[in-house]
Amino acid sequence: MRAVDLIRKKRDGGEFSGDEIRFLVAGLGDGTVPTYQWSALTMAIYWRGMTAAETAALVDAMLHSGTVLDLADIPGPKVDKHSTGGVGDKTSLILAPIAAACGVTVPMVSGRGLGHTGGTLDKLESIPGFRIDLDLDAYRRVARECGLVLVGQTAEIAPADRVLYALRDATATVESIPLITASILSKKLAEGIDALVLDVKTGDGAFMSRTEDARALAASMTTIGRALGKPVQALLTNMDVPLGCSVGNALEVSESIACLHGKGPDDLMEVSLELAAEMLLLGGVAKNREDALSHCRRSIADGSALERFRRVVIAQGGDGRVCDEPENVLPRAERIEWVKAEQSGYVHRLAAWSVGHASMLLGAGRTTAEGRVDPAAGIVLHRKVGDFVKTGDVLAELHFNPSFEHALPAAREMFKQAVTIADEPVARPPLILERL
Amino acid sequence: MRAVDLIRKKRDGGEFSGDEIRFLVAGLGDGTVPTYQWSALTMAIYWRGMTAAETAALVDAMLHSGTVLDLADIPGPKVDKHSTGGVGDKTSLILAPIAAACGVTVPMVSGRGLGHTGGTLDKLESIPGFRIDLDLDAYRRVARECGLVLVGQTAEIAPADRVLYALRDATATVESIPLITASILSKKLAEGIDALVLDVKTGDGAFMSRTEDARALAASMTTIGRALGKPVQALLTNMDVPLGCSVGNALEVSESIACLHGKGPDDLMEVSLELAAEMLLLGGVAKNREDALSHCRRSIADGSALERFRRVVIAQGGDGRVCDEPENVLPRAERIEWVKAEQSGYVHRLAAWSVGHASMLLGAGRTTAEGRVDPAAGIVLHRKVGDFVKTGDVLAELHFNPSFEHALPAAREMFKQAVTIADEPVARPPLILERL
Repeated sequence: MRAVDLIRKKRDGGEFSGDEIRFLVAGLGDGTVPTYQWSALTMAIYWRGMTAAETAALVDAMLHSGTVLDLADIPGPKVDKHSTGGVGDKTSLILAPIAAACGVTVPMVSGRGLGHTGGTLDKLESIPGFRIDLDLDAYRRVARECGLVLVGQTAEIAPADRVLYALRDATATVESIPLITASILSKKLAEGIDALVLDVKTGDGAFMSRTEDARALAASMTTIGRALGKPVQALLTNMDVPLGCSVGNALEVSESIACLHGKGPDDLMEVSLELAAEMLLLGGVAKNREDALSHCRRSIADGSALERFRRVVIAQGGDGRVCDEPENVLPRAERIEWVKAEQSGYVHRLAAWSVGHASMLLGAGRTTAEGRVDPAAGIVLHRKVGDFVKTGDVLAELHFNPSFEHALPAAREMFKQAVTIADEPVARPPLILERL
Repeated sequence: MRAVDLIRKKRDGGEFSGDEIRFLVAGLGDGTVPTYQWSALTMAIYWRGMTAAETAALVDAMLHSGTVLDLADIPGPKVDKHSTGGVGDKTSLILAPIAAACGVTVPMVSGRGLGHTGGTLDKLESIPGFRIDLDLDAYRRVARECGLVLVGQTAEIAPADRVLYALRDATATVESIPLITASILSKKLAEGIDALVLDVKTGDGAFMSRTEDARALAASMTTIGRALGKPVQALLTNMDVPLGCSVGNALEVSESIACLHGKGPDDLMEVSLELAAEMLLLGGVAKNREDALSHCRRSIADGSALERFRRVVIAQGGDGRVCDEPENVLPRAERIEWVKAEQSGYVHRLAAWSVGHASMLLGAGRTTAEGRVDPAAGIVLHRKVGDFVKTGDVLAELHFNPSFEHALPAAREMFKQAVTIADEPVARPPLILERL
């Protein structure tokens, strides 16, 4: 078997056998198929696509490129959630403790922020002392003791994905649906989970802004996951507007804790609870959706979800007081500037991409893959879509430290471009668009 | 400017500016655009194509990636010929001395055999002592003294092409018409020629077997060459059947010398003379095609073409006696086996690809890029398409040395697959299909 013949096959629209895919993935790992051949192949795959059988074989080969965890000795169902990324999307920090409090173990492996979107790892690291780089023994121990664990990808998990992801990023082939499917599912299934809930975002602030693309990705991931014997449920959710009122790492942790205290914004609570309910259903700990939602709400009301979060923060080295007095524990920006409404009316548009980009400019995100984030930086929204404002009302707070002062004019301008205000009232957009 | 953005642009069907193409080619040279990005780009180009303006800019950037020779101090027109490769295609060895004898200087940079096709360098190296690796000073001196020079590509000429060609070969993107155009024209124009004649082959033994592909390549090369200010003339020629009666390195040199003595097979003479006539026309040393052809024929009849060949052989270190007694100077195979006709009738088909492949199996070609060729190995055809044979007549001689004895059954079988014999007479196929 020669890589060049396989590239030609895909170039001409052919379908790979399982053996051919295993040959290619093995070659990526041991260097016998060099990166320059794999990158031409990714472009051919971007162009020609992959069948469900090919994609399933690719997931399987990538997932077996490293350690596949076996969490069978941890009692109860193990269910994770994955989001395709958004702005203000801190649902992981809310739904993981909720699901754990309801009897589902959540062994969550997350990523960092990318571009205008935030990442769970960056958010967690804004909690003083919190360690996301647990070894596999500690990962199992925390999952068992707390019912959830929140870590970054380790070198042992799906190493082929790490190489391939870097290659796709450098060759403009990130958006290929079979390659996204393989990347996400190979990492998630290697965690040793029993089932997976997907939050596939669509709209202005999502990587797949068009609904039909997001739907195709959701369909691909649920089909392939199920073909590989793992129950997968996807929600298509709206990312036209940031989720909740906070964007930026420490600000989002603070808002997540407010949610766990029962004091979160409606939109964020709705998406978090819907996703958590799906996790309970897949985990078999609820009879139906209403039952699952009611379990989830109870875990907020009785403080058991917050208690799970406190446990995991302490187990992973963080300062548990963050759960009670986040304003005294989390880093805070030295400067806060207001953006005020320049006209009266209803907020019709609060574009997630521009808000996320403005937050990134203030230091909350990375402009390069190697960049550092300022945990205190970000944006607090005082108004959301549908709200009424008067001229001069505060629309948002921009939080930043002095070293990012130079970026303030651009961030302010970027934020202003996100907002449209008009005379007529407007309904809040629906959040859960489809279930797949 | 970032390579990944340019890959995305081409992926989405965009058109590069001249600056963008210069950035990419410069990055290929200095490593700032790594090979894994260039290979994804070649696949995107294979898919999306390039406009004439992009292709011209690519040729120009690649041709200036190394030394561009200036042969202005050598008097008279400098014209080269390039063939896209065939089986038994030794026209370079015949037309270069003819054109030189008629007043056109031919500074020819050739390649090696690839797959089932032969290469001029391999053929020349079967002449004892012949050196194809002249330095640039020697190249100029021989061109001036002999009116022709026959060398291989040097490291100074279009280095970007060498890197890119290896990459295309490994990534199944060799067949892209703009990339072929850029590869050929960048090398040829860097030789310092005034004009170029192209022999674009089509049919069973050609790399572009379909006539419409070959025509598109010919159109691309003539258009781009002319856009860059170089007169380019292309002939579309038939490569369904091997050219002449000999396939294999020393055997083809011997047949070429027979042609220069006026004793060559009709098909080989026709293609060689037609291409040489185009060189005379582009070089401005003939009034019209009839005049050009008559000049060319005269150079054979009066021995002046043979005399040019003798001069260049001696100037490049070879044994000049090869011109008078090739059978005593050239290496000869120790074994000759016959392939005989298994039925009587007319030869309808003598498929060039299979004949070339059989010759390669006997040692005349390379199975890998690093392989060595046996100069003595090859095939001598006793019958061509249109000829009548009786059962038991010799169709061809297979020439090989004992170390290739193991390959004889496969070569014999491959040759037999090349031949179709049927009862009804058949015309010889036309050789010159189109002029572009």
